[in-house]
Amino acid sequence: MNQIITFGEVLMRISPRGNKKFIQSNNVEFYFGGTEVNVGISIANFGGNVKHISCISDDFIGNTAISYLNKFDLDTTAIVRSSRPLGVYFLEVGAVIRPSSISYNRSHSSFSEIKPEMVDWEKSLENGKWFHWTGITPALNKGSQQTLLEGLKLARKKGLQVSADPTYRSGLWKYGENPREILSEMIEYSTIFIGGINEINELLETEYTYSNEDFIAASKQLMETYPSIEKVFDKIRTSINSSWHKIRARMWNGVEFRETEDIDITHVVDRIGTGDAFAAGLIHGLQKFDDFKAIQFASAACAIKHTYLGDVNYANEEEVVSILEGNTTGRLKR
Amino acid sequence: MNQIITFGEVLMRISPRGNKKFIQSNNVEFYFGGTEVNVGISIANFGGNVKHISCISDDFIGNTAISYLNKFDLDTTAIVRSSRPLGVYFLEVGAVIRPSSISYNRSHSSFSEIKPEMVDWEKSLENGKWFHWTGITPALNKGSQQTLLEGLKLARKKGLQVSADPTYRSGLWKYGENPREILSEMIEYSTIFIGGINEINELLETEYTYSNEDFIAASKQLMETYPSIEKVFDKIRTSINSSWHKIRARMWNGVEFRETEDIDITHVVDRIGTGDAFAAGLIHGLQKFDDFKAIQFASAACAIKHTYLGDVNYANEEEVVSILEGNTTGRLKR
Amino acid sequence: MNQIITFGEVLMRISPRGNKKFIQSNNVEFYFGGTEVNVGISIANFGGNVKHISCISDDFIGNTAISYLNKFDLDTTAIVRSSRPLGVYFLEVGAVIRPSSISYNRSHSSFSEIKPEMVDWEKSLENGKWFHWTGITPALNKGSQQTLLEGLKLARKKGLQVSADPTYRSGLWKYGENPREILSEMIEYSTIFIGGINEINELLETEYTYSNEDFIAASKQLMETYPSIEKVFDKIRTSINSSWHKIRARMWNGVEFRETEDIDITHVVDRIGTGDAFAAGLIHGLQKFDDFKAIQFASAACAIKHTYLGDVNYANEEEVVSILEGNTTGRLKR
Amino acid sequence: MNQIITFGEVLMRISPRGNKKFIQSNNVEFYFGGTEVNVGISIANFGGNVKHISCISDDFIGNTAISYLNKFDLDTTAIVRSSRPLGVYFLEVGAVIRPSSISYNRSHSSFSEIKPEMVDWEKSLENGKWFHWTGITPALNKGSQQTLLEGLKLARKKGLQVSADPTYRSGLWKYGENPREILSEMIEYSTIFIGGINEINELLETEYTYSNEDFIAASKQLMETYPSIEKVFDKIRTSINSSWHKIRARMWNGVEFRETEDIDITHVVDRIGTGDAFAAGLIHGLQKFDDFKAIQFASAACAIKHTYLGDVNYANEEEVVSILEGNTTGRLKR
Amino acid sequence: MNQIITFGEVLMRISPRGNKKFIQSNNVEFYFGGTEVNVGISIANFGGNVKHISCISDDFIGNTAISYLNKFDLDTTAIVRSSRPLGVYFLEVGAVIRPSSISYNRSHSSFSEIKPEMVDWEKSLENGKWFHWTGITPALNKGSQQTLLEGLKLARKKGLQVSADPTYRSGLWKYGENPREILSEMIEYSTIFIGGINEINELLETEYTYSNEDFIAASKQLMETYPSIEKVFDKIRTSINSSWHKIRARMWNGVEFRETEDIDITHVVDRIGTGDAFAAGLIHGLQKFDDFKAIQFASAACAIKHTYLGDVNYANEEEVVSILEGNTTGRLKR
Amino acid sequence: MNQIITFGEVLMRISPRGNKKFIQSNNVEFYFGGTEVNVGISIANFGGNVKHISCISDDFIGNTAISYLNKFDLDTTAIVRSSRPLGVYFLEVGAVIRPSSISYNRSHSSFSEIKPEMVDWEKSLENGKWFHWTGITPALNKGSQQTLLEGLKLARKKGLQVSADPTYRSGLWKYGENPREILSEMIEYSTIFIGGINEINELLETEYTYSNEDFIAASKQLMETYPSIEKVFDKIRTSINSSWHKIRARMWNGVEFRETEDIDITHVVDRIGTGDAFAAGLIHGLQKFDDFKAIQFASAACAIKHTYLGDVNYANEEEVVSILEGNTTGRLKR
Repeated sequence: MNQIITFGEVLMRISPRGNKKFIQSNNVEFYFGGTEVNVGISIANFGGNVKHISCISDDFIGNTAISYLNKFDLDTTAIVRSSRPLGVYFLEVGAVIRPSSISYNRSHSSFSEIKPEMVDWEKSLENGKWFHWTGITPALNKGSQQTLLEGLKLARKKGLQVSADPTYRSGLWKYGENPREILSEMIEYSTIFIGGINEINELLETEYTYSNEDFIAASKQLMETYPSIEKVFDKIRTSINSSWHKIRARMWNGVEFRETEDIDITHVVDRIGTGDAFAAGLIHGLQKFDDFKAIQFASAACAIKHTYLGDVNYANEEEVVSILEGNTTGRLKR
Repeated sequence: MNQIITFGEVLMRISPRGNKKFIQSNNVEFYFGGTEVNVGISIANFGGNVKHISCISDDFIGNTAISYLNKFDLDTTAIVRSSRPLGVYFLEVGAVIRPSSISYNRSHSSFSEIKPEMVDWEKSLENGKWFHWTGITPALNKGSQQTLLEGLKLARKKGLQVSADPTYRSGLWKYGENPREILSEMIEYSTIFIGGINEINELLETEYTYSNEDFIAASKQLMETYPSIEKVFDKIRTSINSSWHKIRARMWNGVEFRETEDIDITHVVDRIGTGDAFAAGLIHGLQKFDDFKAIQFASAACAIKHTYLGDVNYANEEEVVSILEGNTTGRLKR
Repeated sequence: MNQIITFGEVLMRISPRGNKKFIQSNNVEFYFGGTEVNVGISIANFGGNVKHISCISDDFIGNTAISYLNKFDLDTTAIVRSSRPLGVYFLEVGAVIRPSSISYNRSHSSFSEIKPEMVDWEKSLENGKWFHWTGITPALNKGSQQTLLEGLKLARKKGLQVSADPTYRSGLWKYGENPREILSEMIEYSTIFIGGINEINELLETEYTYSNEDFIAASKQLMETYPSIEKVFDKIRTSINSSWHKIRARMWNGVEFRETEDIDITHVVDRIGTGDAFAAGLIHGLQKFDDFKAIQFASAACAIKHTYLGDVNYANEEEVVSILEGNTTGRLKR
Repeated sequence: MNQIITFGEVLMRISPRGNKKFIQSNNVEFYFGGTEVNVGISIANFGGNVKHISCISDDFIGNTAISYLNKFDLDTTAIVRSSRPLGVYFLEVGAVIRPSSISYNRSHSSFSEIKPEMVDWEKSLENGKWFHWTGITPALNKGSQQTLLEGLKLARKKGLQVSADPTYRSGLWKYGENPREILSEMIEYSTIFIGGINEINELLETEYTYSNEDFIAASKQLMETYPSIEKVFDKIRTSINSSWHKIRARMWNGVEFRETEDIDITHVVDRIGTGDAFAAGLIHGLQKFDDFKAIQFASAACAIKHTYLGDVNYANEEEVVSILEGNTTGRLKR
Repeated sequence: MNQIITFGEVLMRISPRGNKKFIQSNNVEFYFGGTEVNVGISIANFGGNVKHISCISDDFIGNTAISYLNKFDLDTTAIVRSSRPLGVYFLEVGAVIRPSSISYNRSHSSFSEIKPEMVDWEKSLENGKWFHWTGITPALNKGSQQTLLEGLKLARKKGLQVSADPTYRSGLWKYGENPREILSEMIEYSTIFIGGINEINELLETEYTYSNEDFIAASKQLMETYPSIEKVFDKIRTSINSSWHKIRARMWNGVEFRETEDIDITHVVDRIGTGDAFAAGLIHGLQKFDDFKAIQFASAACAIKHTYLGDVNYANEEEVVSILEGNTTGRLKR
Repeated sequence: MNQIITFGEVLMRISPRGNKKFIQSNNVEFYFGGTEVNVGISIANFGGNVKHISCISDDFIGNTAISYLNKFDLDTTAIVRSSRPLGVYFLEVGAVIRPSSISYNRSHSSFSEIKPEMVDWEKSLENGKWFHWTGITPALNKGSQQTLLEGLKLARKKGLQVSADPTYRSGLWKYGENPREILSEMIEYSTIFIGGINEINELLETEYTYSNEDFIAASKQLMETYPSIEKVFDKIRTSINSSWHKIRARMWNGVEFRETEDIDITHVVDRIGTGDAFAAGLIHGLQKFDDFKAIQFASAACAIKHTYLGDVNYANEEEVVSILEGNTTGRLKR
């Protein structure tokens, strides 16, 4: 009963090296990622027992994706295979004032055709302790939304913690449903809310500002609207430019508001997946620490992710704790 | 009135270096290709004036694809753009007894949504001398088949030479039409048939063998069935294994049968696109040489393509003529 | 009548990856560049119709250079070929307090033997709207200087705008002429002056300082001396070190002085060609915007160039405008 | 009760690309290998359930090695960790008449300090069906020899099949024991003998030749000397040079002698681990096929391994069966 | 009599590119280094005549290491060869808040078995002017400690300057001796002390702070305890994080205390070997300049080393002097 | 008195990886070479004491070239530096029927401006035993021809063996002299002739065929014409195609004719410099072996060079002797 379950699309990310554009070089690198599996891999790297559920192409690309998950010792036994290709995204990494650009090829991917009957939720959750979902999955299409909803319902019924990262990405949601209604129903089955003012305003149709006062007020209103939500966690990113960010976190757990100090990331290596690293740090931290230390751990996890190329956070628990404890000068470890 | 027109999908090819599999390395290279554009680029490299018509994604990947065509000085002004992603194929290059493997992600690509109204054939063909098509385009879906058919009809009406490479690939043709009927109608608008016994048997529902006698008989029957066809050209590949091939060609032009000698390709670098190099060599050769020299040129072009990585043939006319004239020992050019 | 004409040497740039020296690695990358063609490519990327005129080696290196220009859709039909090799420069990219180093192999290059009779200026300028030249071309040798001068004279006669970037590089000018006299005559045929205090002091034998007051006074004196000059534009670079620059611009258009804010480039990827990006931004901006917005556009173009590897600016108009409008935090574009 | 158990050292292999020497390039690639783990990974790729037992360094290199095994879905739960570094070997890949060269750094590796008390053989073998060992492990030092011997004894006691690949490598065996005595005792606990005339002559102090007659006679004498041995399998390599090999196999199973045809490997990609691929093919084949088909499968597996870079065989069962069935012309799989 | 002699282990450093971890990429690069040879190579790059003495593996890796030293024109004639492998270290380069990590494989390396009788000190020092040693060599094992001690004694006897960099690394010193006693004896044969408060406190069992006052007091006490010591030099590193350091230096030469300004290294490329670059700069500087200019030179050398990948400082004397003279804005050198 | 002296241009070779063309990839590799320095490096790798004399650019490229020679422990002290750039050649490596192509940028290189007064021949030859020259150096220009001639005269006067490789390359010889006259005078100072029928026919204006009979007759006539010539050595290459060669050698030493067997090079890695490897093998062989064993050694050296990328032969004496002794099956060396 100690398994963390993540459910979502696995994407192949293809990118030129460094800050090059595709027009500059035909040498590219690929990684695998996807918001939920990023969370799963990161938790596995912290020592967690993680099962990832997805639908992956039945070809050598899909085999490579699964071997990538195995590499991090994820439980991949619940993954189903499909004759559709794996979703792909192309990334051009920006620098300084130049933003990174992404082009997706995912709307008819293997995951896009997942249907509720393809996942045996009862079996998949049998050792489950925690279930994590994000707003990407319901945004993809009806099938993925319904499959997730079934999982959510069962997870709550079985008493798992359910963490929600209801990121709203307007470029998705092409299949004709109202994002607010869909997400709203899903949050009713969730206990931990990972998101900030934007997500709350989107759900509640409110206009809270980014101030701490408003964050507390918004969290309270959210928890009134969705009584299952026990705690609200928010990561705050300050972007000087593409290459220089600062990260801090704040929380409202129904009792107290706490906020961490900014961690200064003066030379960003890769910002993709840093939000997922925060969510993973939080899920892991809430199981081991008190709430404030959990957001310290989560923001340290988020910060260190900026130093790894690729979508996933390679840091282990000890490395994140070291940052949390203030070892941020990067002294060489021999 | 000297433009060669090619019409078809442009695909991004992604492949690990050398003989590696995707599971072995996250360093990969990409090239662009697609059977018709391969023909177009090769003819441009021979000095031809080539226009390629296609539908390409309106993102940085599509921009890169178009810049790739521009690089070879193709006329890209008739290309239309789409919000769908560019088609992709993943290639693992085999060696010796291990075959190469391909996985396609093309069934919902930008080209797959092309519709007749998206191409201004009148304008596109206004300087046309030759139109080339292959059996891939009608296999993709109804829209691409109908768009091609309109082009074919107008090309014939305007008196262009029309070369057909009616390759039948059973893995495609998912949209519910009978390949034989579709291809048959298209061949009625064609004048040059580039294909062998397999393609003829498929069209005529015959069972000719690979012998030269049968090739002549089959060609005659083909030309009786499709009176527009003036000449039939066939490339013969002998594969010792993935890394060692031999290439020769034969022809029936209604008057005489001719056959070339085998060219021995003892160390294959890349066999993708070698059939397209043959077609390009033929189209270029028929404009400059007599029929027999044209198949010598085409088989030399096909042979030298096996030494270039990627889908396209980089050889210029002089380099192919040199092989045709027997300079096959690879003496260093200082 | 909408073509921008650039004239100058195309060089092959060869450089180790990252900050390595040649002694550290035999893996190197090459790009093509040259101050005038950099301007041309950048304007083409903004959507301009650009013709580049040059003399390029008639070998596979020259073919590659021309295909590189074609890739950006430049009109390369006026380029002449030569049996001399293409000019090359070797670059070791510095970092922080270590300057980059360049070693040139250009003094007997294909461009170095260009002669007035090799360029058909009448034909080359027939659709011309704007002609751009720099101080590099007259510095190379007598032939290139005279060829340029003929072009300049005809351009003025035909009423094209003529922009001058009279960079004075003392390492060149080996063929025995007085730089001041040569440049002075050329500026008489120019309308837009892109250069700062150093260039003006060099031309006028004055000693203006870098202050805004002196810039205005110097510009006025310049415009009195060369009445064809209508406007003066100056880019100001503040270098904290090799890896951290700031860029702003100022102008005197005969009526008003304006100055932009510094753009902070905290992590320089490649500073080669950033001055050319400024010139390109200015030439494009002056055709679309008022003078002040033109220098804002030019300095944004210059700034974003620092984030691209290689000599040329890959940014399109929309991307530069976005920076000009203040979007400098590098928010990811999905 | 279906697990295949392999036990042995995991080595990091470091090699320049292609046929380069270390003096030529500081760009190198690493893979993991080791004769027994190569067998394990290959069987896992055929679909087998494989547990590998080893002692691996407790650092980021060891973590990477274990993640490499996880990637192929091996059971790594019985691996112990050590503060000693992982063994390394450096490889320069030859070509044609130039042999490959290997330099080892393994004599004080993490595996070299394994001791019997570090492995819980009872638990490790609890689901075991087959145990595979080679002559490398007892050659390393006393501790690894004794640890293996304990495993062998228990494996026989529990009735597992035990396959022996008693390769004798004279460069090892530095710890003062007599190889013949040590290997002899171990073969007493083995049931399947994978080795040829050299290994038999070494064990029996005989002088059999390579003829089939002698192979049969030698096998009979071996089986008389070691009554536990049920079958003898021999792989025969014909080396034209470093880049061109031929592979066939023969067997004596106590009842019949059979021999396969040569498979011609005209362009060797990597010969390291091809013997291990043979052993893996045999172990897998003997569980699914009759003895003759098993050596056909094993020699096809060995042959296809020559086309993969690195120590391990990436082919799955279907791919090997296809070669066994005569599909050796490398026809492209789309 | 102008040779600088360095003595110590040469290690092969293996590292993924950029900030990657070994688990992320099997493409790695190697360099050679080792604290004393880094000093030697750097001095050779300043124009010094340097002999490095070591014990190196007698295989292709050792040949590559020696060719690496030859490349910088070091005198390698006193190097002895061994059948033991060369020491290796694996490096994962951190970024920002993530520290770099090192894993060593050196405890049974070729250098580890060096014995006094293997080095002909009389011959090795015959042209010697300066001898440099560090605290790494005596920490490795008894043999290397004794070999060094013999060299030190002879060097002093022959009147060479002897510089000591008595870095104390607790992860070494496994062979059972008391570091303080060993190092203390060695310092008795030294004339120049390169080290700071930590090293002095370790030797004298004192508790001086980092203040300048304490540095002077500590230096005085050190020079009283070890009368052979003439001068004390200290490099001070301020680490904002892994990617951003500042470097300055201070000195006590028995007469005056001097301190340099911080040099700001805003984008660290590689901090390995920067201490060695300081030592090399000092040794070279003390031969050419007064003491204060020597620490300015040394800290400039240390600073510029942060911009080179690998263990060694590639800067020549002119480049370091330029920084010393304040040219730190990285202006391009054409 | 044991030094081998080589004199000639050092060129930088720049080439894409594998069989790519420059148009296909901007990732290229560089090596250094040049026919005489290739000979020198190869002899140094056999253990010879070699001094190379040249004129090299005084920039970071020249520094890299010299460090490359140092790497192989050549004596580089007689090299002079120049402000002209180093000569460069670009190489596209062919395959099978596609020839490799070379484009030179050497006609105004640093070596091209060498003058007799720049080389101190007396000092350069003071420890000389053997002097080697080729037909490339006198072909470059008057200065290099005269410099070489002075060296040749002194070498003969001092009694050194002088080996001539009078390769005639018609693409050079642009400075207005008659190749035959120039080469003829130089051969008068030579003792060993390394060349075949083509070179002899060129010199003697004869029309000998490639038969052994004609080779003997031609050699006799050559030795009559040039009495200083003691022995004639000829390498015979049979090219099946770019990727498959065979090498043998023959000799006439005034007494006997001998011929070696063909060595079959089924997979050519790099054929550049193979003739130089033959010359080096011969020069080294003649010092250690009898004449026939010397040509066996030379042809084995030539053959193994085909397996190394780059211009130089990395094989040591032991490796070449092993091939000479018939070990051509490439058995792995552990």
